[in-house]
Amino acid sequence: MRKAPSEAPKRVTAAVLVIGNEILSGRTKDANLAYLAIELNKLGVRLLEARVIADVEERIIAALNALRAEYDYVFTTGGIGPTHDDITAECVAKAFGVPLRRHPEAVKMLARRFANPADLNEARLRMANVPEGGVLIDNPVSGAPGFQIGNVFVMAGVPAIMQAMFHGLRHRIVGGEPLCARTLATNLPEGKIAQGLGALQARHPEVEIGSYPFYSRGRFGVSLVIRATDERAIERTANELKQMLVALGGEILDDASG
Amino acid sequence: MRKAPSEAPKRVTAAVLVIGNEILSGRTKDANLAYLAIELNKLGVRLLEARVIADVEERIIAALNALRAEYDYVFTTGGIGPTHDDITAECVAKAFGVPLRRHPEAVKMLARRFANPADLNEARLRMANVPEGGVLIDNPVSGAPGFQIGNVFVMAGVPAIMQAMFHGLRHRIVGGEPLCARTLATNLPEGKIAQGLGALQARHPEVEIGSYPFYSRGRFGVSLVIRATDERAIERTANELKQMLVALGGEILDDASG
Repeated sequence: MRKAPSEAPKRVTAAVLVIGNEILSGRTKDANLAYLAIELNKLGVRLLEARVIADVEERIIAALNALRAEYDYVFTTGGIGPTHDDITAECVAKAFGVPLRRHPEAVKMLARRFANPADLNEARLRMANVPEGGVLIDNPVSGAPGFQIGNVFVMAGVPAIMQAMFHGLRHRIVGGEPLCARTLATNLPEGKIAQGLGALQARHPEVEIGSYPFYSRGRFGVSLVIRATDERAIERTANELKQMLVALGGEILDDASG
Repeated sequence: MRKAPSEAPKRVTAAVLVIGNEILSGRTKDANLAYLAIELNKLGVRLLEARVIADVEERIIAALNALRAEYDYVFTTGGIGPTHDDITAECVAKAFGVPLRRHPEAVKMLARRFANPADLNEARLRMANVPEGGVLIDNPVSGAPGFQIGNVFVMAGVPAIMQAMFHGLRHRIVGGEPLCARTLATNLPEGKIAQGLGALQARHPEVEIGSYPFYSRGRFGVSLVIRATDERAIERTANELKQMLVALGGEILDDASG
């Protein structure tokens, strides 16, 4: 969303709440956080926090209430299937203090998936339970919808389904200005550039400079990432940074936008 | 640590705090959470929560104080390098209400890494700043140590360094009984097994049954994970579960411990 030049750019923030024992046991590697981080930034929304919690009612309620009060948007993943350990919808209803209702449109969505009505059993119908006031999120992959209530979007945990749901809900998100980034990688050690880098950050408070060491094939290097909503500010800072790295005897191993 | 049979098994809990904008921007995929989840369970420690937060002082302090009060152990990763955006040590000191001091042994560790004393500049010496009362964690990869204060272990974010640090500190962890797991995968849809699975969980409160749908090559399936400290309880439940899946016309695609 482009803002009129006179308007101050608004910072729109978000948090992700990953609900699921399988991530905390190490059985499954979370794949949703990185996807949401990148997609939210494209919409001009800054992901500022993520939490991974177990399928425990009081923990889900407490985390959800903390995050929805602090950030503009909250995206949850996981816990909306038909089994006994899928308790996200009940917990969201309790967090908002509203009853959980069987949503007629959600029942229809599920019914379209099952040729034999007997297959739409009570366990599957649980997936049509939505907190009162919730607006459905379409699930083109497996039928059972997610839902939005207030600033909270409740999505599935399976990455293919979560991504399809996010694609369908993205028009509901009102973002600010996207953050642009430029990454310079160098073979210099962090300790050698730290002083100059700190001075550069102090001279350019309009950008955010991050320093991310890497260790690859027995050698250390650093990726320096400059972020800002203003691309010219990034350009100015990047030029100074390059001069600094070369003056310190470093090589620029990579220089990329984004 | 084995407990005497007369002693009730103690549940020892932990949280992980990932500090770093690079994970929240989607630039870097976190690799530490899954590693710590698995290694902690081997020590009989249950990882119950993880948070990813940005390099912002008040957020780091608030998250650290919340987690260290709630869990037996807290492991942080990231933000202990020499650059301006490395603020973890200062924040930990503030969270504990103690001064940050230059640790003489940490200075020695750093000095051993630099043949030329001029290379041990002020930026690098910042990595020897440790909250008062902190006990060092050795860093055999790149020299700059982590530290432990109270129930909080502060480690590097680079996975190779974090893993080396964790290897060195694991003897300080006093765990409970490790949770064992057995995973049965089936081609049945979750909706078909949900009712029976809920009844099985109700009959066996001594185990925890998780149901994790997967979607692979256009087909859905479910991994059913039975967890408990008592392997015989897992065995009993797994036998009943197998019978149930076969009775429902399902195939057992996989049956594995751990």
